Order: sequence, then C-alpha cells, then structure tokens
Amino acid sequence: MRTAQIETVRDLDPATGAVGGVPDAVTIYEVGPRDGLQNEKGVIPTAVKAEFVRRLLDAGLETVETTSFVPQKWVPQLGDAAELIGQLGDAAKGPKRPVLVPNMKGLERAQELGLSSIAVFGSATEAFAQKNLNRGREEQFEMFAPVVEQARAEGMWVRAYVSMCFGDPWEGPVPVEQVVDTCQRLMDLGCDQLSLGDTIGVGTYAHVHRLLDGLDAVGLGADRIGVHFHDTYGQALSNTMAALSRGVRVVDASAGGLGGCPYAKSATGNLATEDLVWALEGMGIQHGVDLEKLVATSTWMAEQLGKPSASRVVKALAG
Amino acid sequence: MRTAQIETVRDLDPATGAVGGVPDAVTIYEVGPRDGLQNEKGVIPTAVKAEFVRRLLDAGLETVETTSFVPQKWVPQLGDAAELIGQLGDAAKGPKRPVLVPNMKGLERAQELGLSSIAVFGSATEAFAQKNLNRGREEQFEMFAPVVEQARAEGMWVRAYVSMCFGDPWEGPVPVEQVVDTCQRLMDLGCDQLSLGDTIGVGTYAHVHRLLDGLDAVGLGADRIGVHFHDTYGQALSNTMAALSRGVRVVDASAGGLGGCPYAKSATGNLATEDLVWALEGMGIQHGVDLEKLVATSTWMAEQLGKPSASRVVKALAG
Repeated sequence: MRTAQIETVRDLDPATGAVGGVPDAVTIYEVGPRDGLQNEKGVIPTAVKAEFVRRLLDAGLETVETTSFVPQKWVPQLGDAAELIGQLGDAAKGPKRPVLVPNMKGLERAQELGLSSIAVFGSATEAFAQKNLNRGREEQFEMFAPVVEQARAEGMWVRAYVSMCFGDPWEGPVPVEQVVDTCQRLMDLGCDQLSLGDTIGVGTYAHVHRLLDGLDAVGLGADRIGVHFHDTYGQALSNTMAALSRGVRVVDASAGGLGGCPYAKSATGNLATEDLVWALEGMGIQHGVDLEKLVATSTWMAEQLGKPSASRVVKALAG
Repeated sequence: MRTAQIETVRDLDPATGAVGGVPDAVTIYEVGPRDGLQNEKGVIPTAVKAEFVRRLLDAGLETVETTSFVPQKWVPQLGDAAELIGQLGDAAKGPKRPVLVPNMKGLERAQELGLSSIAVFGSATEAFAQKNLNRGREEQFEMFAPVVEQARAEGMWVRAYVSMCFGDPWEGPVPVEQVVDTCQRLMDLGCDQLSLGDTIGVGTYAHVHRLLDGLDAVGLGADRIGVHFHDTYGQALSNTMAALSRGVRVVDASAGGLGGCPYAKSATGNLATEDLVWALEGMGIQHGVDLEKLVATSTWMAEQLGKPSASRVVKALAG
C-alpha cells in the first residue's frame, strides 16, 4: 500500500458547499452488524449478533444493515445470515433492514426469508472488482442487472454500494469520472440509493465536494446519495461534514467504529456512529438516536469482542 | 463530567461557511512538546524532548511551542524548561518558537534565556480560571496585563490562548458572548494572536461557525485567530474544516495526537498533526510538512512514551 495516497483537490467551487445547505434530519444507515463485524476473526455467536441488532434498534437506529448473503467461504463471519434473520424475526424485516446480496443466489435466499430490502456491492475500480467480485468492472453491471431487476419486480428497496470511490490500494487515486460512470450505471439498473464508499479511508473534505459535483452534473443529486466513510486516516467525520453541507441526508456509520479495512494495516474502521451523533446533535440535525443507550451497546459489544471501541465518544464517556 | 455536553447550534448562517473561503496556506502551530507532553506522568528525559523538537523542525513544522515556564509544582513534566531551551540553543529562539508563560516571573525567565515569543493562557470560564489560574475570570486580565505589556515593550510576539471556548466540565456549554468578551479583553491587552481552545473537545462544526461569527462581529477576524481542538469526542478535524472554511490560517495540532484532557477519562489528545496534514494536502492547502518524516517522529516518540500514537494516520502508515 502506498504512503502517498492523498488526492489533492484544488478546484473547489466557492459557490458550493455552504454550511447553510445542511439538512434538518439525517438517516444514519447503521452498518455495524454487517460491515463492522465482517472482518472480525473470532467466532461471534449468532445470539450475540442478534442482541447487537436489537440493542441498536432500541437505541433509536431505525436503518440497520443486519447481515450479508455472500457465500460463507468468502465471509465466514456472516455465514450464519439465515440463522440470524431467524432469531431476529420481524425485527429483521421491512425496508429499513437491508441485507447485502452479491448475486441471484443471495437474492433468492433473502426473498425466501421474507426480506424486502437489499444492497448490492459494486466497485469503482478494475482492481477491486477483480479482487472482490472476481470479475471486471464492466462485467459487474451484467452480474447486478438481473438481481436489481428481480428485486425491483418484487417491490424490494435496493441500495448500490460503490466501493473505492476515492482511492484504491492498487490503483491509487480514482478519477471522479470513473466513479460517476460506475454510479450512473448502477443507478440506471434501477437502484434506489447510492452509497459512496471510501473503502480505504483516503478521501478528504475537498475530494468529497468534487465527487458530489461530478454526480450532480449527471443528475445524481444529494437526495439519492448516502456516504460511507472509513476513518483509517482520521478523515471520516470531516468528510461527512462536506457531504452534509451539500444536502446529503444518509450517512453510513458503525456503532463503536467497528470494522476495519482489510487492505490497510490499521485496525481503524468505519465512521463511529457515536462520533457522528455527537456532530449531528451539535448541528441541530435530527438523528433519533439515544446516545447513552448507543454507548452502552458499543461498550457491551467491545466486551464481547475483547477489544476497546475505536469510537472517541465511547472512549470518553465509557472509558 | 456530564454526558450531555453537546451544545446544539441551530442558527447557522447560509451566507457564511462556504468552502471557497479556505486559505491557500496554513500555519500549523505544533503544540506536541508543550500541550502534548505536559500531562504525561512518566519522566521524559530532557534530551528526548530536545530530540522531539529537533525532529519536528526537521519534518517541516516551523512553528513549535517548545515548553512552558510555569512553576514546576504545577506542571512537573515541564520543570526542565530552561534546561531544554539550553539544549536546543538557537533552535528554541525566534518568533516561531513560543513558550507558555503564566506570569511576570515566567516572562522574566523566558527573557533571560533570550526567547522572543510567548503565549499566555486565559480562560473563558470562571470555574477553569479558578482551577487553572487560581483566580477569577475577571482577575486574569489584571494578571496578564503587565506580562503582555512588558513582552510587547521588548518586541516579543504574544499569543493569547483562551481555554474552554466551547464547553467547560463544571459549567457546561459556554455562552459565545462570554468567550468573545474574554477574547476581546485579552486582545485589547496587545496580544498578536488568539488561540480558541476547545479544551475538553466537546465543540462541533456548527458551534465553531457561531463562535467565529461572534468574534467577527466585534472586529476579531480570521487573520488574528488560531484554533485549538482536542479530539476527545472525535470532532477535532471536522471543527478545523469549519474554521478553514472561514479563512482561519493557524491551526494548533500535536504530533501523533499527543496530549490528553485532564478533565476527561479518555486518553484522546489534541488534533493529531498527521491527520491535519492529510486533510490539508487533500484540500491543496500548503502546510510545509514532510508527512513521512513526521510519522517517523511520532512513531519514535510513541516508543519513548511506551504507548501507541493516537493519530489515525500514524496507526495506518506505521502500524
């Protein structure tokens, strides 16, 4: 992994990015149970995962991605997806409880379990498409097309993750046009929402503005966009501020900052939900979360995992 | 310490805070040797401190606050100030090597050593003035007046820190008017630069905008302001983005994120210089720092202190 991965953005538009653009309310898209846990090495009992989801819901997080229907050999940690859904019962269902599905087989499993919301996981780069999807960037659209089509035909809500939107560990900085093209083609398949992923956490405040400019230019406005930042280089919340100032109303976060990038040495994971809530609270943006309950949940989960939470707020309030 | 310390700011001005206001270059005011080390419990040899300062300078940090001339019983860790200055020689002198002085005695010691730049340390709240200065908020101005007057008469550069600009562990959220009043009266004494301190790290992006609005309204513009954020609740870099978007050109940071707030349980310290450099690089803002040298310095210092760096960038690049 190269050390100089910072993409410098010098062409900021003074006419955009005013703080006054911040929304009144934000949907926190909680990815802890899926993105947060998927790289954990130790065995986490299904009952612990179910308890985690229940406690997140109880803390006021309405949108929670519960698990992933990828083949168990790809992500062993989430191999108990069906069992988890079974334990959660109705709490796992509805439009606000998406699950990740990589292909038709995953979709069929989700549908058999009565789920009504899915996310597909695309790549803005060739290298990561090969590594993560085992096919080229061009081929991914063919793979996802029937999945999205069938899901939509059944009335399901569909999210399109786009990973490596800022930098790629093998390719370096990713051209905005390439990201915009990927986003556009995934949305053209019929997806409801984009999630712009800074999978390795290298992006910065200005780069976020530039990408949102690029998406805006092709008609993909803030109302269909979520942002998904990793805090590998400490930029996640700062980047979120850039997105909020552009009117983005969906922010992905992980309780306790769970998760880690498998392509960086650091154990630092997703933007911590608690740190995001602190910022939203300070900006007067509605979020619906009971911060004390959430901190208690992350503290409990840290005990289950046997390591301290990465969230600064959790460290400060529960440390 | 209360858990609900987040001050919600709802009155953002849509006309301000545009990203286009960011400066072309930023002065990083490095506080690692002073603010970073002052709360360390273990004995750090003076030679290690001197080496730390030299390496920071070599990494391109031009403005480095080297130590503090407070009575040794207050801050035992910095009781070797004169010895450190002696070891550093000319590297400790000049306008870009300030030292903290609390009173006339401290100023005299600094002057005897041939230093030409000082910082005084005020408080925006009554509780912290009593705790840290052993006198009331009103009385602090009388204490600092002769210090600033004599320093200015000798041609010294003078910075005024204002602590607890956002929240106070005893008083809760601090009214903007009270902070502005403190700033104004310190600057009226003849100080060259303000440093707005979020000593306990509770402030948020919107609150920064509001305080800068308040200062602007009394004629204290961005050209005389530095910002000093602690990352206790993960807000430091996000808050810095708010300040930069208002044209602030001086940002305090601590190599490796050294330092901790003595009034919070968390060990989280100042904004990490490395994480700031990453953000500035991404925004195309000149900073002058060689990030690899700085990461190597923080890695070395972490070894000296026997604990990992709090900087996300250091963790990711050197972990």
